Amino acid sequence: MIQRIDHLGIAVRSLDETVKYYEKALGLKCERLEEVASQKVKTAFFDVGGTHIELLEPTSPDSPIAAFLEKRGEGIHHVAFATDDIGAQLGEAKNAGVKLIHEVPFEGAAGKLVAFLHPKSTYGVLTEFCAPKDGAASHH
Amino acid sequence: MIQRIDHLGIAVRSLDETVKYYEKALGLKCERLEEVASQKVKTAFFDVGGTHIELLEPTSPDSPIAAFLEKRGEGIHHVAFATDDIGAQLGEAKNAGVKLIHEVPFEGAAGKLVAFLHPKSTYGVLTEFCAPKDGAASHH
Repeated sequence: MIQRIDHLGIAVRSLDETVKYYEKALGLKCERLEEVASQKVKTAFFDVGGTHIELLEPTSPDSPIAAFLEKRGEGIHHVAFATDDIGAQLGEAKNAGVKLIHEVPFEGAAGKLVAFLHPKSTYGVLTEFCAPKDGAASHH
Repeated sequence: MIQRIDHLGIAVRSLDETVKYYEKALGLKCERLEEVASQKVKTAFFDVGGTHIELLEPTSPDSPIAAFLEKRGEGIHHVAFATDDIGAQLGEAKNAGVKLIHEVPFEGAAGKLVAFLHPKSTYGVLTEFCAPKDGAASHH
């Protein structure tokens, strides 16, 4: 079951510049920086009342975020829903006719298991499911 | 001060189709439908652990959402931050060099006061501030 919006992923050209913007113009505090090798990005996280903003800067021209920036420019890249059972959540989506980018979850930021749904079958919204590695939710 | 992400606005061509998708593929429940005359949209809201998904279908070709759909297609349109003082929040953003779309908040969905920051000065993210009409937060 989906429990909450875990984070909103935002594609940026410069983490340095945008971290300053979120801190200065919005008054938010950067909670941590992390490089995610599997996605070829470096990230900055902000906690906004339990939902997070994840800024994503590509570390390589073949990062999916580099491709997004080239095609669409900077902006909101994906929404991630926290689920208590990522396998069941993917199965439910698949049964409803959704095309999955990842049939098998992989390790994303913060050591979580993540998998994406294809935006062509989600009405234009790149959608991520994420769950703690043990598959159980922290608030269960 | 920003307290939480109030909602994520998503531009869609058909509320009927996408409400079905969010219910069937993601297992979320539509909590209410509302027409927002000021933005020429009809909306559907889903509560996702306290943050909301707001689906937006234009009711007129001159709706800002109709223009967005034509230019970018369906997808995430804006992020809205709940603030306890929308005037102060707008002032803080303006002082940091952000261009405001609305200097004066207006009435948006759910009777809240809302105002938008220009995506050209927010690194591509159309950003909304929202607050209860009395300007004070409900959890204060």
